[in-house]
Amino acid sequence: MKIIEPTVLLNAKTCQDNIQKIATKARQNGLHFRPHFKTHQSAEISEWFRDVGVTRIAVSSLTMAEYFVDGGWKDITVAFPVNVLEIEKVNRLASQISLNLLIVDEWVLDELSKRLTSEVGIFIKIDVGTRRTGISPNEEEHLETIFEKINHSNLFNFKGFLAHAGHTYSARSHSEIQKIHEDSIDILRKLKAKYESQYPGLEISTGDTPSCSVAEGWEGVDEIRPGNFVFYDVMQTQIGSCELKDIAVALACPIVAKHGDRNEIIVYGGGIHLSKDRMTTRKGQTHFGLPVLLKKDGWELPFDETFVKGISQEHGVIKCGDAFFEKVKVGDVIGVLPVHSCMTVDLFDHYLDFENKKMTKFVYGKSRN
Amino acid sequence: MKIIEPTVLLNAKTCQDNIQKIATKARQNGLHFRPHFKTHQSAEISEWFRDVGVTRIAVSSLTMAEYFVDGGWKDITVAFPVNVLEIEKVNRLASQISLNLLIVDEWVLDELSKRLTSEVGIFIKIDVGTRRTGISPNEEEHLETIFEKINHSNLFNFKGFLAHAGHTYSARSHSEIQKIHEDSIDILRKLKAKYESQYPGLEISTGDTPSCSVAEGWEGVDEIRPGNFVFYDVMQTQIGSCELKDIAVALACPIVAKHGDRNEIIVYGGGIHLSKDRMTTRKGQTHFGLPVLLKKDGWELPFDETFVKGISQEHGVIKCGDAFFEKVKVGDVIGVLPVHSCMTVDLFDHYLDFENKKMTKFVYGKSRN
Repeated sequence: MKIIEPTVLLNAKTCQDNIQKIATKARQNGLHFRPHFKTHQSAEISEWFRDVGVTRIAVSSLTMAEYFVDGGWKDITVAFPVNVLEIEKVNRLASQISLNLLIVDEWVLDELSKRLTSEVGIFIKIDVGTRRTGISPNEEEHLETIFEKINHSNLFNFKGFLAHAGHTYSARSHSEIQKIHEDSIDILRKLKAKYESQYPGLEISTGDTPSCSVAEGWEGVDEIRPGNFVFYDVMQTQIGSCELKDIAVALACPIVAKHGDRNEIIVYGGGIHLSKDRMTTRKGQTHFGLPVLLKKDGWELPFDETFVKGISQEHGVIKCGDAFFEKVKVGDVIGVLPVHSCMTVDLFDHYLDFENKKMTKFVYGKSRN
Repeated sequence: MKIIEPTVLLNAKTCQDNIQKIATKARQNGLHFRPHFKTHQSAEISEWFRDVGVTRIAVSSLTMAEYFVDGGWKDITVAFPVNVLEIEKVNRLASQISLNLLIVDEWVLDELSKRLTSEVGIFIKIDVGTRRTGISPNEEEHLETIFEKINHSNLFNFKGFLAHAGHTYSARSHSEIQKIHEDSIDILRKLKAKYESQYPGLEISTGDTPSCSVAEGWEGVDEIRPGNFVFYDVMQTQIGSCELKDIAVALACPIVAKHGDRNEIIVYGGGIHLSKDRMTTRKGQTHFGLPVLLKKDGWELPFDETFVKGISQEHGVIKCGDAFFEKVKVGDVIGVLPVHSCMTVDLFDHYLDFENKKMTKFVYGKSRN
């Protein structure tokens, strides 16, 4: 394995174990498993999901949906409020596959009913407390207006209520995650009970990575859509979703300078690679990732007192504990476990596994219009 | 101009004015202008620099250097500590153009002297107080060791001392910038005086965006290398380098939801597009950019109390003042002035100007090995 520049290393075995774990949990709880592919964004990794029986997927943009249609996926939820400006993509996709859209605004339904040319599935996005977007479950009139508009067009196939309990990301223990999970599905179950007779077969779709990883009690839920779990990251260890050994990606970075006067090393690997997502350690230090030593078939666990203390566009500045500092030299390649894996891998067009195999992925920055 | 997804809008006139301003200042002060192209990363924008007489450029990676060699540039400094693992790229580039490398480590010189096949220019990176990387000016023995190694190979052509006074980014007034500028060039001038007889013609290369924008007094400096000034951004207005009207890029974002209960709108445009660089307003609010209304030939100035309060992978959550909230609706496209323009444009493969012209740029995430 010859790495000469920042490269996303993928531990295939860990990644497959993560997929297997959630697939098993879904099966045991009678849940449809609709993984969110915004994290890995790779047709090649998507095959590992097919191997465990997955047929439904979620993505975060219509463009990403197009990429996965090319990869053979036929049941896709775009888990982002419909952007009506992309109606041509919506129509193209809806004519090819079973496409589900997210509704948070009634004007969008008016626009769609005028311009849609094929049937689409409609999920109403419910705000279960994250306060990012979605209809509040208390806005009964708003919901009624939306249902009127849904009933108005025979190209709208109402599928159910969808939520993302993103406030689990503020949790720091299993019990906090469990509490948010219970409150969220309670809201969704009530909505289901209320509308089930009108819309037989309506589904509840929920399940962020923290909830899917550790929460129990899924009665009434039909479908889960976690994404990050495929790789996990250091933030998820702090939330309590996983352990450090479950993290499946590391950013490989060449060391370009060593500063003995302050136990710091400089790596080729900065904000464009890692992203500027940050965390605070228990000691109150801000960091952008945890350095690890690479092995032939993976990486070691992080070292004490060793963290990425700062990043600029292409530089990473790593504060090292003595043990780590002594083990590395300029010209070595080390790994960095990312704070937020979804953001870290986003820039790249491929992963490299430990059998030296490149696995390609979707790349955003490519003209498509 | 039909925008349907997050797109970097370029105000060409503002950008050209920014280039002209620094080019004029360089000329008036007898300085070589070696713009850092890591900000715009575009061969097409680079032509505007040729128009004002620029022949020397700086980039932040060898791969970016390759891109600009294809664009016809023949004198390039890679303003990042040499990564010896990329020796093949170094040799390829050094055989084609006048290539300057940055040295912060003597072991790297040993490696280069063994493996270089063409002559390269060598700048020693001096730490003038930023404490990211570089040799401290007080490390006299360290400098002597480096010079010994430079003299050892006839493929090393010592060019001079290079610095980046990145601590100007913590400044919040012209006088603070001026002070850092004076201290930095004082350090560099002393080094020049000490080594000039040994290395006639050695140059001092410095000049970050804040210093180049507002500092005075450039005696003894030979070359400036600002990058960000080509676009500027909201952070630079807080530092004092520019005004809001000087910002040349805005991220165009479709509005996908409006939440009247909390004066918030949701846009398609998140962390992968804007980056997670953040700022604190004078009122202590964290934000990720300032929303603006778009016009046919540019954008209006930001509105009071209106800022990007949160971002996830593809969502932006905008807190709106009443005036802004009333002016926009779902389906509109608004602009966001970025906190850090270099990071915001990085993901994209093109800019769109107000004559509907696409200007292509370098894209990182592309397999090149």
